[in-house]
Amino acid sequence: MANIGVVTTATNNQVVLRNYVSGFPKESDLYIAPTTVDLRVPPGSMAVLVKNLYLSCDPFSRIRMEKPDPSSPASVALAYSIGKPISGYGVAKAIDSDHPNYKNGDLLWGRVGWEEYSVISPTPSSHFKIHHTDVPLSFYTGLLGIPGLTAYVGFYEICSPKNGETVFVSAASGAVGQLVGQFAKMAGCYVVGSASSKEKVDLLKTKFGYDDAFNYKEEHDLSAALKRCFPEGIDIYFENVGGKMLDAVLENMRTHGRIAACGMISQYNLKEPEAVHNLATIVYKRIRVQGFAAVEFFYKYSKFLDFVLPYVREGKITYVEDIAQGLENGPSALIGLFHGKNVGKQLVEVARE
Amino acid sequence: MANIGVVTTATNNQVVLRNYVSGFPKESDLYIAPTTVDLRVPPGSMAVLVKNLYLSCDPFSRIRMEKPDPSSPASVALAYSIGKPISGYGVAKAIDSDHPNYKNGDLLWGRVGWEEYSVISPTPSSHFKIHHTDVPLSFYTGLLGIPGLTAYVGFYEICSPKNGETVFVSAASGAVGQLVGQFAKMAGCYVVGSASSKEKVDLLKTKFGYDDAFNYKEEHDLSAALKRCFPEGIDIYFENVGGKMLDAVLENMRTHGRIAACGMISQYNLKEPEAVHNLATIVYKRIRVQGFAAVEFFYKYSKFLDFVLPYVREGKITYVEDIAQGLENGPSALIGLFHGKNVGKQLVEVARE
Repeated sequence: MANIGVVTTATNNQVVLRNYVSGFPKESDLYIAPTTVDLRVPPGSMAVLVKNLYLSCDPFSRIRMEKPDPSSPASVALAYSIGKPISGYGVAKAIDSDHPNYKNGDLLWGRVGWEEYSVISPTPSSHFKIHHTDVPLSFYTGLLGIPGLTAYVGFYEICSPKNGETVFVSAASGAVGQLVGQFAKMAGCYVVGSASSKEKVDLLKTKFGYDDAFNYKEEHDLSAALKRCFPEGIDIYFENVGGKMLDAVLENMRTHGRIAACGMISQYNLKEPEAVHNLATIVYKRIRVQGFAAVEFFYKYSKFLDFVLPYVREGKITYVEDIAQGLENGPSALIGLFHGKNVGKQLVEVARE
Repeated sequence: MANIGVVTTATNNQVVLRNYVSGFPKESDLYIAPTTVDLRVPPGSMAVLVKNLYLSCDPFSRIRMEKPDPSSPASVALAYSIGKPISGYGVAKAIDSDHPNYKNGDLLWGRVGWEEYSVISPTPSSHFKIHHTDVPLSFYTGLLGIPGLTAYVGFYEICSPKNGETVFVSAASGAVGQLVGQFAKMAGCYVVGSASSKEKVDLLKTKFGYDDAFNYKEEHDLSAALKRCFPEGIDIYFENVGGKMLDAVLENMRTHGRIAACGMISQYNLKEPEAVHNLATIVYKRIRVQGFAAVEFFYKYSKFLDFVLPYVREGKITYVEDIAQGLENGPSALIGLFHGKNVGKQLVEVARE
């Protein structure tokens, strides 16, 4: 694309991992480093140079900051590298494409580095072209991205909700939880959420349609709080946190209850995971606990978009985002996740289209 | 049936609960009491008087010995009553029947009291007529009863085994485990079992076809023992014990592993259940944990019999029983379960047909 004599490189600021993390991550575990990027991709490379617009802040990044266990290939494959930019999901624009499915100017979402420009090698399971731009582009990091697909497959496929059932969602105002609450109401369920502040609890009740909600930090007895909200017990638990909350939920599950587990954020920063005691309930109440990951359901993504986009356009589904401005604010936004600082889906705006 | 002048009552020894139990049950928590039973059932009662032949010793009885929690209707419904005979599953013979589906002399299995004679009100989901008597009658407390159905639905339905997968079974020489091992081999799986003595470990390898086995009491690091047996990890865990073993298994599960949980015997006698720490694995490895109870799969019982009886007749399925002789030895047989004293399915022979 570039002509001889035209500038073909640019400064590329990156968010780089300084050291592996144990316990809670700190902003100083990451730093911003300027590098230079070639704005052209080599012919025949099948690569695409993209300009990153929005980066998703995901709890899962914490796991990738952990020192890899050399005996575990999975752990080694997952771990970020010290001195290299971290990565995740983001929304980007193709600047120079050698890939037949992407042309310059195309918008896409998928795996990118935490940097201004990334060179990607798109596959049908790593990147998705964005065809619908009448909705905010940033939604493709949340409502229309992995968190949305997580809420959709987790609730509808894993939990098999029935009209009139009771649903509990932890981290309920987060990227996934705010959608699960709305899906639960659409399915005719009674839904209660927990969150970490009064502001979030209000949001759950006023904006996301939760029937009830509580601030778990103000409850000294989580099981009693759940009993108050669910005197007849919980049919479906959408698990985002793990640990003590999971234990309290197990105490309050109904027979044939279902637990969809896509994350256990409360456990990621602990050296020793919290103990769970009430597992025998799984036998007594014939409960199903199912771990899942949205990336294994990409084949349902277009079905999900067909389902959710009309609701979004009609304003029947709401999505609250917490947007940090500029790559330089990425580290604090990411680390804030683990302290519940974000209200709604946390993301970073690197650039506007 | 009885004519005037004929003796129509009999002594009916019963195994009676002396007090509710916390911690490990003791023989003295039960006692034998003679009562008198009318050998005729009233016309119009739809009841059947049965003579009990074999009684099944089940870990679940321990839960029913617990003092009921008055706030939990389920707990109240389940709990045995002090001063009354305990109950469970057994094989019996109809002595006097007012029920249209049973005639005098019929053999059946289902819920009976721990006593010489019981009056039952059979329903299609509480009692099953025994049609096949070319196999030992006692098998209807185990191989052809609840434990057999548990192994069958748990392994084939809940675990969805595939040829070449790896299977771990705890309490592997017990009523259920010895069958799961044999089913796993029939399904082309690699199967390892754990048990509580060298004798049982030998049995697993020589009699039930287990590829490998270990005595968990001799392993100071259960996770390391599992790693030794499953260097590539576990696809399927048939959970019978809970607690520390479950924790160690979670550490060794493979991606998309399945855990069928029908019992957690190690937990039943503990005042505080053991902690499990490795639940985040359920998310990381996208594991499914499914609690289940065979009583919810009675609709598959005849299909199960069609499947298993030919193997039993051809000697292709083996079943080891540990038979206590006489009702008076029932308490020690039942309590022995919780100390792993039984080798194979523990039952009590009350009378021969």
